[in-house]
Amino acid sequence: MDYLELLLKGLVVLFPIAFCWMLITYKWSFRKIEKEPMKVLVTGPSVSDFQLCSVQMGYAILPMIARGVMLGPDHSVTLHLFDNIEQADEALNGIKMELTDAAFPLLKGVIATMDIVEACKDINIVVMLGGFPRKEASALGKHAVADCKVLVVANPANTNALILKEFAPSIPEKNITCLTRLDHNRALSQIAERLKVYVTDVKNVIIWGNHSSTQYLDVNHATVTTPNGERPIKELDTDDHWLKNEFINTVQQCGAAIIKARKASSALSAASAACDHMRDWVLGTPKGTWVSMGVYSDGSYGIPKDIIYSFPVKCQKGKWSNVKGLKIDDFSRAKMDATAKDIIDEKEVAHSCLN
Amino acid sequence: MDYLELLLKGLVVLFPIAFCWMLITYKWSFRKIEKEPMKVLVTGPSVSDFQLCSVQMGYAILPMIARGVMLGPDHSVTLHLFDNIEQADEALNGIKMELTDAAFPLLKGVIATMDIVEACKDINIVVMLGGFPRKEASALGKHAVADCKVLVVANPANTNALILKEFAPSIPEKNITCLTRLDHNRALSQIAERLKVYVTDVKNVIIWGNHSSTQYLDVNHATVTTPNGERPIKELDTDDHWLKNEFINTVQQCGAAIIKARKASSALSAASAACDHMRDWVLGTPKGTWVSMGVYSDGSYGIPKDIIYSFPVKCQKGKWSNVKGLKIDDFSRAKMDATAKDIIDEKEVAHSCLN
Repeated sequence: MDYLELLLKGLVVLFPIAFCWMLITYKWSFRKIEKEPMKVLVTGPSVSDFQLCSVQMGYAILPMIARGVMLGPDHSVTLHLFDNIEQADEALNGIKMELTDAAFPLLKGVIATMDIVEACKDINIVVMLGGFPRKEASALGKHAVADCKVLVVANPANTNALILKEFAPSIPEKNITCLTRLDHNRALSQIAERLKVYVTDVKNVIIWGNHSSTQYLDVNHATVTTPNGERPIKELDTDDHWLKNEFINTVQQCGAAIIKARKASSALSAASAACDHMRDWVLGTPKGTWVSMGVYSDGSYGIPKDIIYSFPVKCQKGKWSNVKGLKIDDFSRAKMDATAKDIIDEKEVAHSCLN
Repeated sequence: MDYLELLLKGLVVLFPIAFCWMLITYKWSFRKIEKEPMKVLVTGPSVSDFQLCSVQMGYAILPMIARGVMLGPDHSVTLHLFDNIEQADEALNGIKMELTDAAFPLLKGVIATMDIVEACKDINIVVMLGGFPRKEASALGKHAVADCKVLVVANPANTNALILKEFAPSIPEKNITCLTRLDHNRALSQIAERLKVYVTDVKNVIIWGNHSSTQYLDVNHATVTTPNGERPIKELDTDDHWLKNEFINTVQQCGAAIIKARKASSALSAASAACDHMRDWVLGTPKGTWVSMGVYSDGSYGIPKDIIYSFPVKCQKGKWSNVKGLKIDDFSRAKMDATAKDIIDEKEVAHSCLN
């Protein structure tokens, strides 16, 4: 009886506390739903020649964004679609109609336009599938919000991102990135396939450098979750020759193999990787996990400054930071320097074209 | 002092209870992640002629399924891709490579095959983008799980679904449905656009009958959420002429307008609608909301039995049921009967072709 009384009295005291807490969290969750829609600009999504990579990619990425794959299921979005190629008008409009027809609950509006100022107005997130010449870059710098996040997918991605940075100096350099997540994801899935595990069990591969054939795929720090805990891949797969040759080649050649099979470039997987890149950047990477992103080099790991180079990064609260202190062996060092040199060469070619 | 003591004692009593509860819910959430992957078969996703509707639709729907848009974010899937058209082999393989490259956490495997028995083995969910002749229907009946859910998208969808039912008699008739959700979603978004509200504020339109130009779009029971609560659309939009003419025509002509603009059929919006259809069927419709599904008629609302007809339905625990007792006026009655007649005519043509 004594305990029953105690329990009842305890409830009397705790109830108001619990009630207040519920009220606070309820209000908070309510506010979450009320968040302003994020404005997401996708460039080059529409042209009706199906051979162009960006078309199919645009078509694949737009429903993912509208479904919350990129920014999470509780964040509504307004999509801005921009194209500057002749005759894009009608195609853009067709995509807009389809997006509207789909009645996506998170999609609060679609602006399809060939006017760069309208496209860039108050933009929070940019995904560049199409190229973005000087005039467009400068419009973005002028009209997007101050902490606008940019992801360049259009090839040559690293160099395109660098040029964008130069022509949009008002955008913080930390906010301009390029996509190497597709290569990162391919590496995860190749390892999962070889070791007969799920892809979710593999983590912390690294794509260093350029999104080109010189990129260096590094598995020295990658791990696999096994029934006996996390173990380095190098312990599980002792075939060093495979890791240093066939594996790297397979990931590098994935794109070409898909073009051969589909008679079109990877679009679905690239679109999905772009969503992964942006989601991790905005919402954070899981604890103990890093991802590969092409970012502005601060000189980490002896990589030259002033280039966009793919590094292992962790993200938290909408900001990425370099993973520090990884041990680099001689094999890796040579590969990392070679891909840096490739980026510097590309940069010089691009500058000579621009001048 | 007395209250502090009471609070502490109360905590001593409540702590073990809360702890047990946490343990139970933790175990439950852990079990949720451990669920067996659902096996989802998509037919006709691959052929490399881009003019074919099902190709682009397949390409649009596969990442949605792999991302959990169709079955929820805590349910892993194995995708089966089937095509029976010559030369589909390489294209199927290209799609499989891309799905693997994307490293979708929920995707536990991809089987791309031209062998119908392998394709249908232990299947839980079927989305038919491509036609499905007799032989395939009978393989599905033999090799899928007993409560396999089927969604027919390939046109003529209602009649294709009926024929599938006849050649796969082991599948319960309640488990064979066809897609009218795209028309349903289009109606919601057209109303939202006209009334300048978000599409999430509009609900309970009805698509009656055939997925063809005779379908009847009924807004007599539809409502809009306003600051003053839920109100019938008929109260907010008194232009009866618009609702009975332009509106119905616009929704019917959406498909043609998109083909004109995109030089290709709706794919993204159809894929999204197919996910909506299946998700609501498997996970349930929200309280007070119904959706349109082409289902086997039980004679409700005076519609002939033995046809697949689009009705308003509610879903709960993986089962759909007709919404009962809606008032039908004379205008609606005539339209509903006309589209039923259209389905019966189609059925007779199909049967005469099969014999």
